[in-house]
Amino acid sequence: MTEIHTENPRTLGRGICIITGASKGFGRALAHEVSHSLKAGSVLLLVARSESLLQELKLELQSFTEEQQIVVRCVAVDLSTREGVHETVMVAKQEAGNEMDHVLLINNAGALGDISQFASFTDLDKVNSYLTLNVSSALVLTAGMLQAFPCRPGLRWSVVNLSSVFALQALPSWVLYCTGKAARKMMFNVLAEEEPNVKVLSYSPGPMDTEMQKDIQRLTGAKYHLFPCQESAAKLMKLLLDNEFPSGTHVDFFTV
Amino acid sequence: MTEIHTENPRTLGRGICIITGASKGFGRALAHEVSHSLKAGSVLLLVARSESLLQELKLELQSFTEEQQIVVRCVAVDLSTREGVHETVMVAKQEAGNEMDHVLLINNAGALGDISQFASFTDLDKVNSYLTLNVSSALVLTAGMLQAFPCRPGLRWSVVNLSSVFALQALPSWVLYCTGKAARKMMFNVLAEEEPNVKVLSYSPGPMDTEMQKDIQRLTGAKYHLFPCQESAAKLMKLLLDNEFPSGTHVDFFTV
Repeated sequence: MTEIHTENPRTLGRGICIITGASKGFGRALAHEVSHSLKAGSVLLLVARSESLLQELKLELQSFTEEQQIVVRCVAVDLSTREGVHETVMVAKQEAGNEMDHVLLINNAGALGDISQFASFTDLDKVNSYLTLNVSSALVLTAGMLQAFPCRPGLRWSVVNLSSVFALQALPSWVLYCTGKAARKMMFNVLAEEEPNVKVLSYSPGPMDTEMQKDIQRLTGAKYHLFPCQESAAKLMKLLLDNEFPSGTHVDFFTV
Repeated sequence: MTEIHTENPRTLGRGICIITGASKGFGRALAHEVSHSLKAGSVLLLVARSESLLQELKLELQSFTEEQQIVVRCVAVDLSTREGVHETVMVAKQEAGNEMDHVLLINNAGALGDISQFASFTDLDKVNSYLTLNVSSALVLTAGMLQAFPCRPGLRWSVVNLSSVFALQALPSWVLYCTGKAARKMMFNVLAEEEPNVKVLSYSPGPMDTEMQKDIQRLTGAKYHLFPCQESAAKLMKLLLDNEFPSGTHVDFFTV
């Protein structure tokens, strides 16, 4: 007699999932998606600056996560600071026991930045500040997590880089955004080349109904169709559950 | 009767040429090359941290540049600081009269950085410091020069980005270098898309007999043929004199 599986066999396992920029938009939609694919005993770490928005999200998830025995922890920090990155790594270490079989780090936090003309960027501190949040912080957080959860047999390790078509394509007056996204794409490609035990996915989530997209439409006057964050988050989840992408690949919303 | 041209018709014109990282290696070789292609009344700005090495280079160039009526100015500053960038732009403005017909900015300064494993980069300040010199500074200096010398009819404007094959190709344990070079490539692509009056060239200079390459061979144990800096500098000069490259293109030493 064969054993009958009642649970969804397509899961992320018993994992610790860290989502940065979790309080709003795509990160928030992703938290919902991820929570439905984690096994009992998993930990979901929601990282963003706003404690109140994170607590609101935790409440939204609560009835389901309590039933499924998933621990949700809010980490209200500024990831553009040493302290913010350090605290996130520390909380992840504290919360995850030794029994985890999947570490899933979703580097989603990021900002559009100033979309002025190239010649306007004469302020070194302003450029540095943009690169700190959008590039350095993602490197340092990922490195910290790799140290906190060393690769070992039986441990699945996944890193998602929230990317953009503008990691590949130069757009006039988007120098900060394009530069940051191109830098991240390369950074995570290096990780993919270097660590065969870590699967790296750069995901370009498409135009979504987020605050950032509303800012872009307001600032540029462009009008185009925006997809619900949930739709894009579901596509990313499908990629992670299928787990068939080659490490280091760059996948676009429209091709999933 | 046709007029006989005695001077080399292939020149960079009466220009101001700014070379960062001019004190050593490729930048130094390039200073020699450039000085031979500038017309009388031109200004050559040599920028690097070491006043003594810059003065040494100026002396090397002196007999030729005095004869050709080319002004050579040394700017000993740290380009990873606001003050360093600001002073470079100020000196360029002071030295260049209104009669210049070419602004040529060669963003050559850069560092290899730490080539340790990805997981070792847990120090935010260290990553930020690398990106400041190798990415932010080049953006802010270029923006400052664009403001100092606005595009106008009759003014040729050229920007060179010293790039690398590793702007395109991820190399294990070279996360800082690859990320910085990919970021720069995109940054200058945005400028090319944005400013039709500025010609932008990303030039990958090949493996040269520089201190950086010696460091690489020492650190990695790799051995490969190194070309003289002068040979690579001459190829870049040919590209600039021919001026046939499409703006924003990425050209490799081995293809010139």
